Amino acid sequence: MPGSGPAYLAGLFGDREVAAALDGPAQLAAMLRAEAALAAAQAELGLIPATAAEAVAALRPPEPGELAAATERDGTPVPGLVAALRAQLPGPQAQWLHYGATSQDIQDTALALCLVEVLRVLEDRLQRLGDALAALAEAHAGTLVAARTRFRTATPTSFGLTAAVWLTPLVRLRAQLAELRAEVLPVSLGGASGTQAALGPRAREVEQRMATRLGLPVAPLPWHARREGVAEAASWLVRLSGALGKIAQDVVLLSQSEVGELRLAGAGGSSTMPNKQNPTAAEAVVALARANAQQVGTLFEAQLHAHARDGAAWQAEWLALPEICIRTGAALRHALALVEGLEVRVERMRANLDAGQGLWAAEAASFALAAHMPRAEAQALVKAACREALDSGESLTAVLRRRTDAPLDWAALADAAAQLGEARAMIERAVAANAALPVARP
Amino acid sequence: MPGSGPAYLAGLFGDREVAAALDGPAQLAAMLRAEAALAAAQAELGLIPATAAEAVAALRPPEPGELAAATERDGTPVPGLVAALRAQLPGPQAQWLHYGATSQDIQDTALALCLVEVLRVLEDRLQRLGDALAALAEAHAGTLVAARTRFRTATPTSFGLTAAVWLTPLVRLRAQLAELRAEVLPVSLGGASGTQAALGPRAREVEQRMATRLGLPVAPLPWHARREGVAEAASWLVRLSGALGKIAQDVVLLSQSEVGELRLAGAGGSSTMPNKQNPTAAEAVVALARANAQQVGTLFEAQLHAHARDGAAWQAEWLALPEICIRTGAALRHALALVEGLEVRVERMRANLDAGQGLWAAEAASFALAAHMPRAEAQALVKAACREALDSGESLTAVLRRRTDAPLDWAALADAAAQLGEARAMIERAVAANAALPVARP
Amino acid sequence: MPGSGPAYLAGLFGDREVAAALDGPAQLAAMLRAEAALAAAQAELGLIPATAAEAVAALRPPEPGELAAATERDGTPVPGLVAALRAQLPGPQAQWLHYGATSQDIQDTALALCLVEVLRVLEDRLQRLGDALAALAEAHAGTLVAARTRFRTATPTSFGLTAAVWLTPLVRLRAQLAELRAEVLPVSLGGASGTQAALGPRAREVEQRMATRLGLPVAPLPWHARREGVAEAASWLVRLSGALGKIAQDVVLLSQSEVGELRLAGAGGSSTMPNKQNPTAAEAVVALARANAQQVGTLFEAQLHAHARDGAAWQAEWLALPEICIRTGAALRHALALVEGLEVRVERMRANLDAGQGLWAAEAASFALAAHMPRAEAQALVKAACREALDSGESLTAVLRRRTDAPLDWAALADAAAQLGEARAMIERAVAANAALPVARP
Amino acid sequence: MPGSGPAYLAGLFGDREVAAALDGPAQLAAMLRAEAALAAAQAELGLIPATAAEAVAALRPPEPGELAAATERDGTPVPGLVAALRAQLPGPQAQWLHYGATSQDIQDTALALCLVEVLRVLEDRLQRLGDALAALAEAHAGTLVAARTRFRTATPTSFGLTAAVWLTPLVRLRAQLAELRAEVLPVSLGGASGTQAALGPRAREVEQRMATRLGLPVAPLPWHARREGVAEAASWLVRLSGALGKIAQDVVLLSQSEVGELRLAGAGGSSTMPNKQNPTAAEAVVALARANAQQVGTLFEAQLHAHARDGAAWQAEWLALPEICIRTGAALRHALALVEGLEVRVERMRANLDAGQGLWAAEAASFALAAHMPRAEAQALVKAACREALDSGESLTAVLRRRTDAPLDWAALADAAAQLGEARAMIERAVAANAALPVARP
Repeated sequence: MPGSGPAYLAGLFGDREVAAALDGPAQLAAMLRAEAALAAAQAELGLIPATAAEAVAALRPPEPGELAAATERDGTPVPGLVAALRAQLPGPQAQWLHYGATSQDIQDTALALCLVEVLRVLEDRLQRLGDALAALAEAHAGTLVAARTRFRTATPTSFGLTAAVWLTPLVRLRAQLAELRAEVLPVSLGGASGTQAALGPRAREVEQRMATRLGLPVAPLPWHARREGVAEAASWLVRLSGALGKIAQDVVLLSQSEVGELRLAGAGGSSTMPNKQNPTAAEAVVALARANAQQVGTLFEAQLHAHARDGAAWQAEWLALPEICIRTGAALRHALALVEGLEVRVERMRANLDAGQGLWAAEAASFALAAHMPRAEAQALVKAACREALDSGESLTAVLRRRTDAPLDWAALADAAAQLGEARAMIERAVAANAALPVARP
Repeated sequence: MPGSGPAYLAGLFGDREVAAALDGPAQLAAMLRAEAALAAAQAELGLIPATAAEAVAALRPPEPGELAAATERDGTPVPGLVAALRAQLPGPQAQWLHYGATSQDIQDTALALCLVEVLRVLEDRLQRLGDALAALAEAHAGTLVAARTRFRTATPTSFGLTAAVWLTPLVRLRAQLAELRAEVLPVSLGGASGTQAALGPRAREVEQRMATRLGLPVAPLPWHARREGVAEAASWLVRLSGALGKIAQDVVLLSQSEVGELRLAGAGGSSTMPNKQNPTAAEAVVALARANAQQVGTLFEAQLHAHARDGAAWQAEWLALPEICIRTGAALRHALALVEGLEVRVERMRANLDAGQGLWAAEAASFALAAHMPRAEAQALVKAACREALDSGESLTAVLRRRTDAPLDWAALADAAAQLGEARAMIERAVAANAALPVARP
Repeated sequence: MPGSGPAYLAGLFGDREVAAALDGPAQLAAMLRAEAALAAAQAELGLIPATAAEAVAALRPPEPGELAAATERDGTPVPGLVAALRAQLPGPQAQWLHYGATSQDIQDTALALCLVEVLRVLEDRLQRLGDALAALAEAHAGTLVAARTRFRTATPTSFGLTAAVWLTPLVRLRAQLAELRAEVLPVSLGGASGTQAALGPRAREVEQRMATRLGLPVAPLPWHARREGVAEAASWLVRLSGALGKIAQDVVLLSQSEVGELRLAGAGGSSTMPNKQNPTAAEAVVALARANAQQVGTLFEAQLHAHARDGAAWQAEWLALPEICIRTGAALRHALALVEGLEVRVERMRANLDAGQGLWAAEAASFALAAHMPRAEAQALVKAACREALDSGESLTAVLRRRTDAPLDWAALADAAAQLGEARAMIERAVAANAALPVARP
Repeated sequence: MPGSGPAYLAGLFGDREVAAALDGPAQLAAMLRAEAALAAAQAELGLIPATAAEAVAALRPPEPGELAAATERDGTPVPGLVAALRAQLPGPQAQWLHYGATSQDIQDTALALCLVEVLRVLEDRLQRLGDALAALAEAHAGTLVAARTRFRTATPTSFGLTAAVWLTPLVRLRAQLAELRAEVLPVSLGGASGTQAALGPRAREVEQRMATRLGLPVAPLPWHARREGVAEAASWLVRLSGALGKIAQDVVLLSQSEVGELRLAGAGGSSTMPNKQNPTAAEAVVALARANAQQVGTLFEAQLHAHARDGAAWQAEWLALPEICIRTGAALRHALALVEGLEVRVERMRANLDAGQGLWAAEAASFALAAHMPRAEAQALVKAACREALDSGESLTAVLRRRTDAPLDWAALADAAAQLGEARAMIERAVAANAALPVARP
């Protein structure tokens, strides 16, 4: 809403491109596109004069603020918009504007158009982020790093695999875009109560031609009162911001002072501590993702849309959906900058791995020992050796060599690089899945 | 949780079949299936003795309550389960159980198995509900009823179209089931940190054979720390309960005393007012849908899963997902009973439509008049006639005939059945879309 | 955020006064007030030169947009603000600005100041709304209307009691304002890590003097990382918008075509149906309340504020709290206009009550009959009579008189006004509780 | 709900005591207490026979499961309960049970009774947790530890201050308990539609005597349709679980491998990695807090309770509130065990502080230098010295001494213990605030 956010937060939480696809001028322009497509379709079928359709196509929308009072009165900007547009038209043509449509038809069609544009902006960034992550995954396929499970150092992994884990949900999300566009956001043209009665006997043809002109699909029947498409689009957005939140949270944690395995470009300063570099963008992505996950329920609940049109349920969508779009856009913008500016500190990763007396070898050692003794005995032996290593400061393999004469390949056990299992193949599969996605239209 | 819900609420909020797919015994049985499939796959490849796999296949899970203390200590039931199972195995075979797997592999694979079963239960009901709605839509394709928009009587529609609007989201949801099964819920087999290191060089083969045995897909890399699949499944469930909530809310409103167009089978009684029949099941569906829409954010947020495994984020899923399943199941069960037991009061629908001095003809009259005068003038004339009709108690068409000599087809205008526009064709498309869905496996 | 909401929605969802208390200029001005109060307190104690404090007091904040880039980099506007302010100060004095404080001190103190102003705006409206509801309750203490329970006509009540039920939660909320101000929103002055180390040995005195100057309380220790106050303030706001949502939802339902007991001033029009008047403002209040109830969880979750400062948790507050304030303000503004413009249609209330064959008398009849027969028998008799009345169209009391010779006071039974029980006394208590509240400062 | 949670999760997510206050038998027993108190009050006033009240007092509630079918039909267990109880009474007395009450009166009064018991259980634990945190804060008032702000090492603080920060929200929450009991959860006795009509002319006296017997307050008018009390109670619970979540999240982070400053008693094991100890209980508290923060919106939204009784809104409370109670109880139980079992590793805290080349002195050094040069110059000097220290591995003070001849007290600067500012006084204030709270009744 106007005034709801201080301008100094525009860079942190705002998104110029996404906002431009959804702001007042954009939505009014889309409403006008909807009216023009309707009029053109009706003119093609001889239902209204061709000159009227041409006149509608030449209209210009009013300033959004001019419609505030009418929108507050009517609960939708469309009656005010139609009145303002009719005032621009000569009398005989004014009547053919909005002919047979209801406000919700125009506003929901405009929403579909705006969301398609939002998806285009996001798809482009998603593709770039996917490519950046794929490159990161390949570049660090062999970079050893300690896996942390439940905030405890576990076995070695590669940083490339971490990047591939970040990438994989984005591949799924990108793959769903085509269906989102084809199924979820159709043209809306139901007329007053969803029967298309005022549109006349060729209503379906009008709807189909209008949809074709706008590049939108048609639905079997109007979506005035069934909002599953809005809910599905919202769910896609919030799954995306959640997937970005995972990346960002890992970045915060891997860059924390005590870990220090990642450094961020452009990290923010402190007003009083000259030594600090703060992970601002990563924090923002986490905050945006969590705020989205709370707000999105509004869109699921808005499916409880009473009767043939429910003003409160409909308005609730407008409160939640544009924000979720913008938050997702801002999160994606920050995530892209984060990943592209990531400094991977390979030596620190290695040093951290080695810092724990090589306890990361515990699992591998217990598997290796199990070839020479019962597994339970092997696990008990390793557990005791872990404790001794922690107490004495020796490496786990040194302690184990003293405690057992089982003929293990001690060099391999001490070599974290030998413990990466399928990491490289996994990375290749993730990268290939990303590469197989269709390229976004420019 | 044990004790979290009074047993007297079992019929209202519980769901025997869905709960049976997710309860303690079901989840432990699924964990054991996961262990057995892993062992069988490893035995096939010669990685563990065939006798060990056979012994694992013959194991029986413990009582869930026996694992409560271990689960509270470990944060997952699997270590306690594995210990209890190993105690049943002869020493040499005990070591091959859970060989190379981590707790999360077993628990998440079990989750996938349980969710597949939940989806099976829901799909069957969804199909029956879809068919019931399709039948209702066809039976009442010509049943006149007032559309209500924004809680105001609008133009006539048919009750069949209302039923078709209820049906359409369910068609989309059913159509997504195949992909949910094929993409969203794969087998989990990553080992300690997601590299499959302890599974040996044939890890991918093991994973694929294990998946085939369980009827689950495989993913390009483990989903330990990427939870988009859980989020997507949750979103499907909540979109479903939201779609059911829309039906139920309409039923509450159409059966309210002042509307009375629907009556419900089995409506509940009052403890003090002998005249009342309450819409209990419909209320429950609304309540379940709203509670789901609030809780589901937990699953989107759980995507912010730190590092290679995050205990808190993982546990949060267990708090939210089973409940959402059960609530959705209960909502679907009630919705099915509601729709199957719906008494459609055709005369009351007609009487209500006629009660408003035929104001429903206002839109049609203004379109008809617009053929004889400028549209703005036509609308003003109709608006004034509406006011006069409301004041005088006459019908709108009677007032209009007095106020204009435009040669309208007054009989058609007074005939609500002539105002249904495309309703019948819409119903046919919705019914056809439902009929085109694949039939659920028995 | 800038661009997040179309300007045409400003009247529907925005709130000029609340936004003005929270927008960029307001927050920067409050940050500057915080800096000035800190400097003045330090100067009073001789810790910094008096001329420096005077120079700080004379500063003017920059335009919010000028700080967008710095805020995006730093994750808080304060470092950029301090730099911009220092550039206005002569070198020797620049160093005393922000002396010993951390960014969070200034930003959180400003938040407290802004929220106090928001509460002032809301309190004033709350008082007016309370008075309007009290007047409505008293005026309609004897206005008969059907109570609806579970969307079914129940026994008679008075519309004044409905208004008193709307009023009562607002009384509680207003009564909590004093404590909110005194306890929940203290000054923040912890320094870099919350120890006040850089503030020197008289830090507590500085904090207390700063608080006094700003009219804020002090806390036992800094609230950098404990956010229960923000959560409590948010909970107050959302309880308020929920209480308003109840009023608005009742207004939607009582003004629906089939009930028609309330009419709204300034109801909105339809773009195609000349006969419709839509309950726009009431719908907006419902939508705002539901959206708030979803988003507020962000503030409860933001209590999980890691370590001594958590950028993500802190930022999440900024995403959610200002919007909740504005939504609550808009809801309160609409609710006030709704209640002040309500047309209570006394005859229609009475007509609706009478329309149901007097079934509202069922409970009273069964109690009266129970003086002459066992209660179960009385209830069964009434139930059967209800069914007969519904079938025959007779009044319930007419049917009952035929079915029993119990010597009831039939006139009293048929007199809904005699069935109001304690309604009048309840109204008086609610009105008195409202009148006993302290009057808001002008 | 029955079956909604596997029994193996009982220790992790369940709470025996809280569940026992809310489970089926407890709620039915409370409903029966409500009926008995009503009957006793009516008998005292001569409105029903004393023998009837005695008979009611002697009743025993049925098994909860026996009421499942009736509850599913009626949407509340009370009609079924009343019928089951009446079947136990001799005919003439059966009619005096539930005399003049409605189902909601009994169920909501029972809810109030159960919540009072829940609060008693929680208060006792809160007090113990508060005392444990106060003791921890005092014991570690001088224990040096690095403060972390935004996941970066900042200036020194004391671990005691961290504990005092954990404590402070709990003090506020405990202080609110008395008012919660006195204001928020009154007896419910409105009769069919909230007018107390069927209760006769002495209804208010009945209500007051019933309340006194039950130890509950009375409200100015019934709360059937105003649910602000439920919302306020829920908000208290979720603010509590949020405050506990903060403690637990800090514990997870301070015990992570790379920090290692806390160790947890009873930490859980891994199924495959013998070296790991997982922070299970702390993870559970975080998960419970986040799940609560999502679900609680249901209770705020349930304030949108239509008309005089709204089945869906009322049922939604039953879905959300008991779980929130149990989750909060489980979180409090775990938090208490966590804090009581915390091993504070003082040396590791000190070692971590020293590990960063003493960069924690940066802020203090810049303030000290600012006495000898302009502050901007001092900050630039310190920033450059920080970078040099990080590159060279020297301590910050060593670098600074080389770079400046300002006569600083270098020993004090290098002494973290001298940097604690007001920490000790803050701890004392927090501990005193805790000690000043009223002691819970045994």
